[in-house]
Amino acid sequence: MNLYIGVDLGGTDIKGGVVTSEGEIVFEKTISTEAREGVSHVMDRIAGLVRDLSNAVKEDGKVQSVGIGAPGQIDSRTHVMRNAPNLPGWHNVEVLPQMEERLNMKIVWDNDARLAALGEFSFGAGRGCSEMMMVTLGTGVGSGLIINGEIYRGSIGSAGEFGHTTIDPGGPQCGCGRRGCIEAYAGIKGVLRIARGILNTGKKSLLHEINWDLLSPKDISVAAEKGDKVAIKVFQEVGFYLGVGLANVATLLNLERFVIGGGVSRAGEFLLEPTRESLKKHAIETAWEAVKVMPAELGNQAGVIGAAKLAMKI
Amino acid sequence: MNLYIGVDLGGTDIKGGVVTSEGEIVFEKTISTEAREGVSHVMDRIAGLVRDLSNAVKEDGKVQSVGIGAPGQIDSRTHVMRNAPNLPGWHNVEVLPQMEERLNMKIVWDNDARLAALGEFSFGAGRGCSEMMMVTLGTGVGSGLIINGEIYRGSIGSAGEFGHTTIDPGGPQCGCGRRGCIEAYAGIKGVLRIARGILNTGKKSLLHEINWDLLSPKDISVAAEKGDKVAIKVFQEVGFYLGVGLANVATLLNLERFVIGGGVSRAGEFLLEPTRESLKKHAIETAWEAVKVMPAELGNQAGVIGAAKLAMKI
Repeated sequence: MNLYIGVDLGGTDIKGGVVTSEGEIVFEKTISTEAREGVSHVMDRIAGLVRDLSNAVKEDGKVQSVGIGAPGQIDSRTHVMRNAPNLPGWHNVEVLPQMEERLNMKIVWDNDARLAALGEFSFGAGRGCSEMMMVTLGTGVGSGLIINGEIYRGSIGSAGEFGHTTIDPGGPQCGCGRRGCIEAYAGIKGVLRIARGILNTGKKSLLHEINWDLLSPKDISVAAEKGDKVAIKVFQEVGFYLGVGLANVATLLNLERFVIGGGVSRAGEFLLEPTRESLKKHAIETAWEAVKVMPAELGNQAGVIGAAKLAMKI
Repeated sequence: MNLYIGVDLGGTDIKGGVVTSEGEIVFEKTISTEAREGVSHVMDRIAGLVRDLSNAVKEDGKVQSVGIGAPGQIDSRTHVMRNAPNLPGWHNVEVLPQMEERLNMKIVWDNDARLAALGEFSFGAGRGCSEMMMVTLGTGVGSGLIINGEIYRGSIGSAGEFGHTTIDPGGPQCGCGRRGCIEAYAGIKGVLRIARGILNTGKKSLLHEINWDLLSPKDISVAAEKGDKVAIKVFQEVGFYLGVGLANVATLLNLERFVIGGGVSRAGEFLLEPTRESLKKHAIETAWEAVKVMPAELGNQAGVIGAAKLAMKI
């Protein structure tokens, strides 16, 4: 059996999995990143994880190649990682030669949000289409574009930053310093800002029982499931803005599918229904008719599966 | 010499040209569309124009094929034109079989804004890049996307409607019925609305000498060339909004070039400089660094040349 290893490098954990050509994970393991120990240490840890995974499945088949998803911008011409906000020291790092030195295996790598998109496209909610975007709603809003059935990287590899498209140049401040980016509405901080704004009006809500400093999107989706009107309204508002952003992408690119994942998307239809309504309102008709908004199917395995899928293409 | 005919079908005129494989127009002719006479009449006129062009160059070479650019949405699966706002009766029209019946030549067709983009990409301001968008600022704001060196049409052919992406869901009303589309700022009506808004503040301007009902973007660019501060401010404001929209496209797609054409772009650097500033302010850094904003080079021949270029690919 041909097997492929996918690695999803994050600021806290490194997830690894051995994946079949049908996208099934046959073995997985997660270790801590220990990002503070620096670039070389993290690379050693990735290499150790890959060796462990490879050994664990050696009776099932041979590992053909390794794909790595990393949380930063990778120059598509030079394969250098420009920077990774959550990995101290990862600035202009040439990952491939250093990893190949450690592993003596065929290795590919790309941005993690893009590989999650590739995973959903190949084996999840994007199956059967050829133009899609996956959006991951977390602390940041990541995204990956599939165009003509392939990952789209743009001229130097920075394509897909949907989270920093502007839907109101006078809107709330985003973590990037600009105003009115999608992330400022649909990233975790944006969701909490919207929630506090509604709670501040004094409306009755289960959420008043939670310390505002500890409030999480999960608390809000749990409250929404209990019928809490404020919580439901929070996701209606988030969905409105997310829908404006998706409408722009649909109007520009005429995609077939938007796949929504990440922690904030735990709210499910409380978020997706208002998102679809806003998309319908803001997109041109033919673009709206052609596109479906669907929840991600692979959960937090999308990155590992997508990284392995990239490795299958070597 | 291999020759190709390009036709640019508009609501008022049909422009035709015989084009070499190097993109030079060797003969051109324009006739009125007579759109009110209906679909079949307009098709007869296109066929007559193509025959005239073909006869005019018969001593120079053989016309290989014909490309037609049409002002409407064309379904990329069925080649049916869904509708064309400026061509009465052109609703769900199957153009290709009807044109082939009339001409017995190889014919291709596509949306006119897309073919203008293909023209600039192949022989104009987009030469040498592989990812670009052309924006045509006129009554409407048309656009055409080139991705991986090819026209990008999207899943059913409606891609590229940059003019109807939203940069402020609470913004001014657009002709499409939605609010805050790029066209509501950078289409002719949008430019005039911005101009009237500034003139209404009572600021001294050469533009006060013109009847506001007759005011055109050309008047404003002529005034700007004379140093009129109000006129200059109009294009600064238009450029700000256009730059927000372009920043979204750059951030999402990491393109190499934006090519700006159409009547409003006659203002040249009065418009392009504030557009670039706003693009820089609103796009992510790597996207902004990778992209240039340039004036179109082919003027109103871009559509004919691009249509001929499409015909070269048959």
